[in-house]
Amino acid sequence: MATAARIELAIEGALTAHLSEDCPPRLAAAVRYAVSPGGARIRPRLCCAVAAACAADNPHIVDAAAVSIELLHCASLVHDDLPCFDNADLRRGKPTVHIAFDERLALLCGDELIVMAFEVLAAGAGSSPERLQALMRVVGRSVGAPNGIIAGQAYECEPGVDLRAYQQAKTGALFAAATEAGAAAAGEPASAWRQLGSRLGEAYQVADDLLDVCGHVGDIGKPTGQDRLHDRPSAVQALGFDGAMSRLATLIDNACESIPDCVGREPLARLVRAEADQLESRLRRLRAAA
Amino acid sequence: MATAARIELAIEGALTAHLSEDCPPRLAAAVRYAVSPGGARIRPRLCCAVAAACAADNPHIVDAAAVSIELLHCASLVHDDLPCFDNADLRRGKPTVHIAFDERLALLCGDELIVMAFEVLAAGAGSSPERLQALMRVVGRSVGAPNGIIAGQAYECEPGVDLRAYQQAKTGALFAAATEAGAAAAGEPASAWRQLGSRLGEAYQVADDLLDVCGHVGDIGKPTGQDRLHDRPSAVQALGFDGAMSRLATLIDNACESIPDCVGREPLARLVRAEADQLESRLRRLRAAA
Repeated sequence: MATAARIELAIEGALTAHLSEDCPPRLAAAVRYAVSPGGARIRPRLCCAVAAACAADNPHIVDAAAVSIELLHCASLVHDDLPCFDNADLRRGKPTVHIAFDERLALLCGDELIVMAFEVLAAGAGSSPERLQALMRVVGRSVGAPNGIIAGQAYECEPGVDLRAYQQAKTGALFAAATEAGAAAAGEPASAWRQLGSRLGEAYQVADDLLDVCGHVGDIGKPTGQDRLHDRPSAVQALGFDGAMSRLATLIDNACESIPDCVGREPLARLVRAEADQLESRLRRLRAAA
Repeated sequence: MATAARIELAIEGALTAHLSEDCPPRLAAAVRYAVSPGGARIRPRLCCAVAAACAADNPHIVDAAAVSIELLHCASLVHDDLPCFDNADLRRGKPTVHIAFDERLALLCGDELIVMAFEVLAAGAGSSPERLQALMRVVGRSVGAPNGIIAGQAYECEPGVDLRAYQQAKTGALFAAATEAGAAAAGEPASAWRQLGSRLGEAYQVADDLLDVCGHVGDIGKPTGQDRLHDRPSAVQALGFDGAMSRLATLIDNACESIPDCVGREPLARLVRAEADQLESRLRRLRAAA
């Protein structure tokens, strides 16, 4: 089965398992709404790509790792969109959870997604408890303090922020978890794969900053110009458009160079470059149209 | 070491491990503030008491289970206190997290506590991966959908609510996790211990409803009269003061009868009765003074 379809199936399986009939219906609806239809599912795809490059032997564990990372990503979007942070009305082209439901359900929806992520890991790694422990370590670290995405978001509550530390925690951490979890799900040492995820996470954050200045809401499904509006640190603000584009290219090069030796090293590097090329073309097109 | 001191030490260990120097300082401060000084620590004490009754052989796993449950409890308090739910100013005799810090940090603080709870479990059950899986299942189920504390809180967002289902999820679930996790940490089958936790959770919720009508803020460290103010379902509203007191006594009887055969059955039953007697005396004293 193609990776994208497999990921959707695994996500649907997790939702069905947890949002059963005896779940409060509005909570169930809010969680489904936050997760499906999704965005590019870039983190779970990356996780599956690394697992494949490592010749993973157990697809259930890989699926569990990929789904858990996507659920944590969705949780962070729902909570970051809340009025106390971004106060965003639109996400993935539709009203944010607190607009479509209410603030209470958005709060609980994010909480539920975090818990579900760990439950999915525990259930999926059932046949291999020692892999469960490695996955829990990798995934937990990427979300929690001191360096995970929650800490990344918390930098917005600090008076002075180092752009690199902020972006590394806010975006890089979950990308690093995606590559590390892909390896851990295959029973390989995770840490060798950290660099690839971190670089791709940085690249993704730079791309997101670029989209924020040159995209339109209709192109990217969420309001643009938010970094300037909220006075948030941004690669474009720091480096200019061309500087940020050049930084993006360097990060993709570094990412590909960092891929550890494994049976699927070359196909994985080609996949990363193909996705990056698509993204760069899209950014140049949007910039030209702006 | 006495259980209470041991729990505080284990909690402090978890905080120190996660809130290291490179954690955003305000997030670290908010998390510490939410957890210490704590309340009665009744859930982790219950977890440790069950583990002791089961003659647990590994104190690290027991500590991890107890701490994880307390952190999840603290997370639920921080999020339930937020303006969109209870809008509470006071908790454990001091300003709530969103008052002492701000709403953003209260949101992230709750998220961080949920993640930390699972990280603590994974780290603590290191020497025994098969126990980790049992613990993850027990703890995850008590927090997440469809029947955990998040679902319990979500019943407040539904138009009509069954009092028993609401309280079972909102309070009973984490108590059930405390007893089940105590057994699982000792390597015993968890499900036999579910009944004890559920009954004690129901009892605790009834006691909380009673405190809400007859306590004063100075006695219980949080504002009283909240159930009526927020039009929340309550045992006192349904059964009256005496009816609720009688229900409390029945639940404690049922709880003690449900304790499975184990080496420490009798001491555990005595402990439960002693705590319940103290609580009932306190409620009668407060009622007389009201």
